[in-house]
Amino acid sequence: MSIFEKLKKGIMPGEIRFVAREEKIDLEVLKENVKKGFTVILANKNHKSLKIPTGVGKDLCVKVNANIGASPVFFSIKKELKKLKVAVEAGADTVMDLTILNKSEDIDKVRREMLANCSVPLGTVPIYQVAVETGCPHNMDVKTYLKVFERQVKEGVDFTTVHAGVTRKALKLVKKRLIPVVSRGGSFLLSWMKKNNKENFLYEYFDEILDIAYEYNVTLSLGDGLRPGCIFDATDKAQIYELKVLGELAEKARAKNVQVMIEGPGHIPLNQIEKNVKLEKKICRGAPFYVLGPLPLDRAAGYDHIVSGIGGALAAFFGADFLCYVTPREHIGLPSEEDVREGVVVTKISALIADLAKGNRQEFLKNKLISEARKNFDWGRMRNLVIDKEKFDKYLKSSPHIKEKKGCSMCGDEFCALKVFSQKRRR
Amino acid sequence: MSIFEKLKKGIMPGEIRFVAREEKIDLEVLKENVKKGFTVILANKNHKSLKIPTGVGKDLCVKVNANIGASPVFFSIKKELKKLKVAVEAGADTVMDLTILNKSEDIDKVRREMLANCSVPLGTVPIYQVAVETGCPHNMDVKTYLKVFERQVKEGVDFTTVHAGVTRKALKLVKKRLIPVVSRGGSFLLSWMKKNNKENFLYEYFDEILDIAYEYNVTLSLGDGLRPGCIFDATDKAQIYELKVLGELAEKARAKNVQVMIEGPGHIPLNQIEKNVKLEKKICRGAPFYVLGPLPLDRAAGYDHIVSGIGGALAAFFGADFLCYVTPREHIGLPSEEDVREGVVVTKISALIADLAKGNRQEFLKNKLISEARKNFDWGRMRNLVIDKEKFDKYLKSSPHIKEKKGCSMCGDEFCALKVFSQKRRR
Repeated sequence: MSIFEKLKKGIMPGEIRFVAREEKIDLEVLKENVKKGFTVILANKNHKSLKIPTGVGKDLCVKVNANIGASPVFFSIKKELKKLKVAVEAGADTVMDLTILNKSEDIDKVRREMLANCSVPLGTVPIYQVAVETGCPHNMDVKTYLKVFERQVKEGVDFTTVHAGVTRKALKLVKKRLIPVVSRGGSFLLSWMKKNNKENFLYEYFDEILDIAYEYNVTLSLGDGLRPGCIFDATDKAQIYELKVLGELAEKARAKNVQVMIEGPGHIPLNQIEKNVKLEKKICRGAPFYVLGPLPLDRAAGYDHIVSGIGGALAAFFGADFLCYVTPREHIGLPSEEDVREGVVVTKISALIADLAKGNRQEFLKNKLISEARKNFDWGRMRNLVIDKEKFDKYLKSSPHIKEKKGCSMCGDEFCALKVFSQKRRR
Repeated sequence: MSIFEKLKKGIMPGEIRFVAREEKIDLEVLKENVKKGFTVILANKNHKSLKIPTGVGKDLCVKVNANIGASPVFFSIKKELKKLKVAVEAGADTVMDLTILNKSEDIDKVRREMLANCSVPLGTVPIYQVAVETGCPHNMDVKTYLKVFERQVKEGVDFTTVHAGVTRKALKLVKKRLIPVVSRGGSFLLSWMKKNNKENFLYEYFDEILDIAYEYNVTLSLGDGLRPGCIFDATDKAQIYELKVLGELAEKARAKNVQVMIEGPGHIPLNQIEKNVKLEKKICRGAPFYVLGPLPLDRAAGYDHIVSGIGGALAAFFGADFLCYVTPREHIGLPSEEDVREGVVVTKISALIADLAKGNRQEFLKNKLISEARKNFDWGRMRNLVIDKEKFDKYLKSSPHIKEKKGCSMCGDEFCALKVFSQKRRR
């Protein structure tokens, strides 16, 4: 039975129990949040390797997603599995497989391998495979879509991006943009609508998608096919128009007991982040907000994980629930394993900064403990509490003065701020 | 003549003309801001190698400082000069020499070499050398302080940190802290006051310091010796108490026509950053705010430049004028050249994010231009506009598909979001 079937029958789903325990949140509160659509639980009953059903939404810790996946120019299942491992080890709460390849069977292969090895929820964007299976975005059709969608969720995919909000009206709206579209799914659908002169089939057949989603307890992530791809296009008519459509679709999903979250921008200047988060929460009636970035600057290629870390911390502080990482290689190419690692850690830092700022008790205590350890030059205890032990070790190793002197290499022992003045003299 | 002498005689100082031109700000507006103490111009008339007098404050771009300097455990003038070069090339608007060594003459040597090679304003913390010259923090005295201070500013130092706000009352207040003090200058003075049972001589003899500062047009940076060193101590009584003292001292400085800015935290959770900036602006009547961080998380050692980048972007957006960088090695050791570079670039990104969010027209246009170049796969024009060309080149080189296909390695050409749907078909 899916989560909503159980809830209807008065059974407390195991996934909800698990999340409540993990996050130290009251079971009844969590259940109500799920019922109201303020929180989703990512957990497909067919995802056999899933060990960590993950809650995203109200009163929960901010979650981090890592996008990986092969492309026609870089295709190695082994490498993608390594990235999956690296991402989860670095702290990713979920992973999305964005593989796009020239052969549909290859996309299946990658996804199946990932599903078999993914202890956290796995997400996909089925439209990619639909374009490949039909030969080209112009040839896509709803029949193939539903077939691909069902195949993916039947195999255990926990959440899928569905760009159902990119409707025909968008064709006119994106004309005013500097960059009409940067979402791959969005570009496929805009192109399809233009060529075929029809309404977006994801929008038209949304009910059919919901029926399949309900059966497997897959969470729909309503994609922002019109997310702004540069500061110039931020919070423009196209973006807000799509958000309103997503709000309507979210209501439909809830009415059918399908869990739903909303994807968000994109490139947004810092002063518009609060507004964007509050708008989503209002228009989509508290649905979990899943943001890519946001990126408050366009010209930091090579550092976009940091730009996104800045935007993401602020978005999460204002209420975004789920941060999709950005890697240092964003806008230039596909991430390497090292990029994946760096992207996850930085995004995790943003999530924790927001948790702490929102009053999370556990995070406050961890910060207190590491600061006590720091005061006492207890590098071992600090190591237990730092976010990235590997990097900590690397820096520690290159500062030989630390271990010898029970100090650090910032200054000589006699000039150490922590030692010169100390309430408890240790020597 | 110093800037204020010229202003009194109705002469427009060349430094103000220079800054107005650089920042595209009205000359009269800038002059008024300097007069009112909302803006300082860092430029000591004796700093002969200074090419870029730098304005910090109201309506100006957010500035970035890089701290470098030798310590008894790592002493190489050559390496420090290399760090100076790296910092300025990476975009630091100012550099501070925080050298502390066992011999006072060595501190002089490092500073003189830096001054001779520093095209941007150079700052110091004279109290470090005072502790060395008197043998130990407990032996410091005001006579030595004034002598060292005058020596440093006579040689051309453009701004100096003066921890005059750490008064005796602080001894009681820091007892409630998890980490009483993390500022080196602050720890020297607390220790001195405790041992000698006297008031902070920087506070008592502040007038004498102002007289020297006026003569050489050196800007005082009122140090936050009581800045919180961990989230637990953020925005506590000790910190706010010191800020109030700094507000009084700032008034004194203005009355004597000495330019003054205020140093700020430190470790502060994200939700307290706005409050901290507004408090400084109120208490110190609009004096430029120079922040270290702020760091909204204690447990990301190895990534503190990013933690600080997040806090700094927000602080600058809310009105902080000057960001002191933090490097990846913060809390562990002294930065390497590479750390310096990374620290400057990340802090610069925060500054630009804030400039953009506050409506800076130049920054908006640069973002627009790079986005146009991106739409057209014009990697050459993108390179001209990215913040770190070196890193951009590195990533570009490792993505060979970019140049061949006029695309990127994210996907095959046929699935590129920027190409699938394009208002102007190029092929």
